Amino acid sequence: MKLLEDRILKDGQVFPGNILKVDSFLNHQIDVELIGEMGKEIKRIYDGCGVNKILTIEASGIGIACITAQFFSCPVLFAKKTKTKNIAATVYKTKVKSFTHGTEYDVIVSKDFISEGDRVLIVDDFLAEGNALLGLIDLCRQAGAEVVGCAIAVEKGFQDGRKRVESQGVRVESLAIVESMSDNAVTFRR
Amino acid sequence: MKLLEDRILKDGQVFPGNILKVDSFLNHQIDVELIGEMGKEIKRIYDGCGVNKILTIEASGIGIACITAQFFSCPVLFAKKTKTKNIAATVYKTKVKSFTHGTEYDVIVSKDFISEGDRVLIVDDFLAEGNALLGLIDLCRQAGAEVVGCAIAVEKGFQDGRKRVESQGVRVESLAIVESMSDNAVTFRR
Repeated sequence: MKLLEDRILKDGQVFPGNILKVDSFLNHQIDVELIGEMGKEIKRIYDGCGVNKILTIEASGIGIACITAQFFSCPVLFAKKTKTKNIAATVYKTKVKSFTHGTEYDVIVSKDFISEGDRVLIVDDFLAEGNALLGLIDLCRQAGAEVVGCAIAVEKGFQDGRKRVESQGVRVESLAIVESMSDNAVTFRR
Repeated sequence: MKLLEDRILKDGQVFPGNILKVDSFLNHQIDVELIGEMGKEIKRIYDGCGVNKILTIEASGIGIACITAQFFSCPVLFAKKTKTKNIAATVYKTKVKSFTHGTEYDVIVSKDFISEGDRVLIVDDFLAEGNALLGLIDLCRQAGAEVVGCAIAVEKGFQDGRKRVESQGVRVESLAIVESMSDNAVTFRR
């Protein structure tokens, strides 16, 4: 999506360790007009797939998920990160490794809000190693829900995430795929 | 706001300890159509106040903030909860006590995204003791930004939050004010 790529080139910042900072418009400050265009594009891509629920993970996926859900006229469900040891029997739980922080955490969703028959679109801001997506897919499958696919804002195309998610039989669509990054030079795969 | 009050009566659940669960439509699963109507109402209330930025706190404020920001045509900034001890010089930091969890945590925003001249509307899902709002107000004031007011989805009118926030000279508007709760009987202040 050219609009997003152009914005990354204009306002994104590259830091050592393959870190791409887009916090001026995507995941700290949020440009809701840009996100609106991204939501429209995600709707175009997954139109006709029968999506009836959008699933994301707190916190930085929530904004994109909510605005995208407006185009699908469906609710958003956001999975919560938790450190609580005693998890209620009323939730589905999975483990996710954080690429950014090098830690592992539990992720939960209430059993009340996802079930067999749901056709779920997973939305998130970043795809790198794919750990968050794999966790969200696991939650859907525990619930017996169908994962229609994933819609990602920015994919790091030089990492393994897409391969790992696709090997689960799940479609992956990213609005911008970063091919390489170095000293503020970002190139995209098209 | 009758639409929200009716939804709370229909789908909200009361638990011991004055806990009102609205996680089927507000802060776990999110009904984006309802939030759209709430955003429209917040725009009506604060129209003409020159709001150029909406500030919220992760995670459950982000959805309401993003959808509301569409009506103001302004960006959202969400403050992050952090446990990192060494906070960069590039952020404003404050401490917030959690009413729900009985803990205290640091909350930060980047100095890049809030500054003198900003006219900030603070948006959040709940107002109880007001600790989150007071923290967000503190962040704005550290930055020299003007707090236009607060827009809250659900206020617990029997707790001290409003009084504490108003004593800072900040306007508080809530879309639903819970007067009392007991065994699934919720009454509103109108």
